[in-house]
Amino acid sequence: MKVGLDVGGTKTDAVAIDDEGRVVASVRLATGWGADAVIRTVIEAVTALAAEPGVAAITSVGIGIPGQVDSASGRVSHAVNLGVDELELAASVAPRLGVPVRVENDVKAAAVGAYALHGAQGSMAYLNLGTGIAAGIVADGELWRGSRGTAGEVGHISVDPNGPACRCGQYGCIEAFAGGGAVSKRWNRPGSLPIRDIFDAADAGDPIAVDLRAGMARGVAAAVRVLVLTADVDAVVLGGGVTALGERLMGDVAAELAASAAASAFMRSLRLDERVELLPSGSHAAAIGAALVGAMVVTDTVDTEGALTHG
Amino acid sequence: MKVGLDVGGTKTDAVAIDDEGRVVASVRLATGWGADAVIRTVIEAVTALAAEPGVAAITSVGIGIPGQVDSASGRVSHAVNLGVDELELAASVAPRLGVPVRVENDVKAAAVGAYALHGAQGSMAYLNLGTGIAAGIVADGELWRGSRGTAGEVGHISVDPNGPACRCGQYGCIEAFAGGGAVSKRWNRPGSLPIRDIFDAADAGDPIAVDLRAGMARGVAAAVRVLVLTADVDAVVLGGGVTALGERLMGDVAAELAASAAASAFMRSLRLDERVELLPSGSHAAAIGAALVGAMVVTDTVDTEGALTHG
Repeated sequence: MKVGLDVGGTKTDAVAIDDEGRVVASVRLATGWGADAVIRTVIEAVTALAAEPGVAAITSVGIGIPGQVDSASGRVSHAVNLGVDELELAASVAPRLGVPVRVENDVKAAAVGAYALHGAQGSMAYLNLGTGIAAGIVADGELWRGSRGTAGEVGHISVDPNGPACRCGQYGCIEAFAGGGAVSKRWNRPGSLPIRDIFDAADAGDPIAVDLRAGMARGVAAAVRVLVLTADVDAVVLGGGVTALGERLMGDVAAELAASAAASAFMRSLRLDERVELLPSGSHAAAIGAALVGAMVVTDTVDTEGALTHG
Repeated sequence: MKVGLDVGGTKTDAVAIDDEGRVVASVRLATGWGADAVIRTVIEAVTALAAEPGVAAITSVGIGIPGQVDSASGRVSHAVNLGVDELELAASVAPRLGVPVRVENDVKAAAVGAYALHGAQGSMAYLNLGTGIAAGIVADGELWRGSRGTAGEVGHISVDPNGPACRCGQYGCIEAFAGGGAVSKRWNRPGSLPIRDIFDAADAGDPIAVDLRAGMARGVAAAVRVLVLTADVDAVVLGGGVTALGERLMGDVAAELAASAAASAFMRSLRLDERVELLPSGSHAAAIGAALVGAMVVTDTVDTEGALTHG
C-alpha cells in the first residue's frame, strides 16, 4: 500500500492508496514548526495511517512539501513557512519508516495527484493558488521537472510593468496580482480569511476590494494563458487555498477569459474557457500525488533500514 | 542520406546530412508563391541536392514550413506568407520523391536543428525572432508538441496591458513589442531592412527608433523569462531574421536581463544572462532540423511510390 503526505504550513494531510489508486484511509495532523518537528509530524502521520483499518503493509512513502526539493536526494531547502532552512528529509525518515521514501515539491506532487484524478491522460497543468502561485506540468504521465527547479514558476512572470510590487523585486508579477499572500498584504485589514473578506467587501462595493478582486482574476487568467501558450496543455486545473472560494473566483476568471476571447480571434481559438477546471475540494490531490511519487522507481536509493515500529 | 528543407517566405534552404548529422551539401532556391509553386520548389530543391557531389542515396525528406502543420498527415494550413491556405504537402511530394516525407512547422523544425547543433543534451528552447515570434521546446531529444498546436506560442503572451496593439487583438503581446512585422509596421518608413534602419536611427538619437528598439529588447527578454519560468529549459537559443542584428540586439537583451537581475534576487538566481545564446548565422539549423524530423519514424505512413526521377 502506498502512503502519501502533503506537508502544509499548518496541516499535514496523509493518505494510504491501494494499487488502483483508491484512498483507503486518510489522517490529518497539525504540522510541527522547524526541521525536527516536521520529521516528527511525518513519522506520526505514517504511524497513524498504519493503524487505520484497511491499511495493509506499507510499501512506499511519498512526501510533498513546500520549498526547494531535490527529489533525487530527498533534501528540502528554504521551506520558510515550515521553519525549515535545510533538511535531509528522506534520509531522516526512511530509516525509521523502513520503506523507500521520496520527497517532491508540494505543487509538483499535487500536479501528479490532480493528473491522476483528471483521468491520467494527455497533458495538464496544475495551477496552485495559495500564498504564492506556481504550477506543475504533467504530460503523458510524466512530471515536467525542468533543468534547474523553476519549471512552473509562472507566478513570477510580470504581466504589467505598472502593476503591484512583487516580493521577488519585480512589478506586476502574476503572484503580485493573484497570490493570497500578496493580495492579503495589500488589503491589510484584520480577519482570518482575508481573501474571502475581500470578495465580500467587493460584493458590497468597497472600491479597494473591487480592485483587488479584479486583479486576482486578471492574474489567474494570465497564468492560464501562459501555460496554454507555452506548454499547450490540454487542461489547466486550479487548486490551492484560494480556490476555496469556488465559483466566486471561477466566475471572475471565466469573465476575464471571455473578455480576451471577445477581443481576439486567436485567443478565442484556444477555447480557454473549456480548458480551465477547479480541483474538487477535499480531493486529497496533493497527498495522492505524493503517494504516486513515492512509489516511483527510486534511482538514488535511500537508506531504508529499520522498521515502522522504530518510529 | 537525410534531406531537410526550410521553406521560407522568400528562400528555401535545403541540406543533405549524413548519419553523423554533418551537412554534406546545401542548396538555396527562391520559394514559389502558392501551393503548386511550393510543391515545385520542394521537388526542385531535392532534385538539385541529389545532383550535388557527395550526396548518396536519399532515404528521407523532412520539410519545415510556416503555418499550422499537422505533422501526422503532413498537411499545411494558413501559411499566409507562402500564399498557401491548405496543402497536403507530404502526400503531394512523397510519390514524386519516392522516399518518406515528413512535414513540421518551421519553428519546431528549427528547434530540433538548434538542439542538435547545441550538443543534443538537456533541454532547450529555440526562440524564433522573425516577422512573428514563437518558440520550440526540446527536452531529452524530444520536441514538445503540446496538445493542440500552440506549444511555444509565447509571442501572444501579453506583458503590458498598455503596450502596443497586436495583430491578434490583444495589447502588449511579446510579438507586438519585438516581432519584426509589428515593429516595422509601427516604424512605417521606406527601406528594405526596417529593423536595421531602426537600430541605426536609434543610434543617431531618433526618439521613435529609441523607443521601438527598447521595446524589442523588452519583448525578447520577456520571452526568455517566460520560457525559463514555465518550462525551465537549460538554454534559450535565439534565431530568425531579426537576429541578423547579432550583438547589436543581444547587447540590448543582455542589458534588459541585467536590469531585472539587479532588481530581483530571484531573477538573479536564474542566471538568464548565461542561458541565452544566439544561433550562429549560416548554421542551416532549420533545414538540419527538418532533415532530422524527416528521418523520425513515421507512424502515419505516407504513400512513397514513384521515384525521384519522376520529379
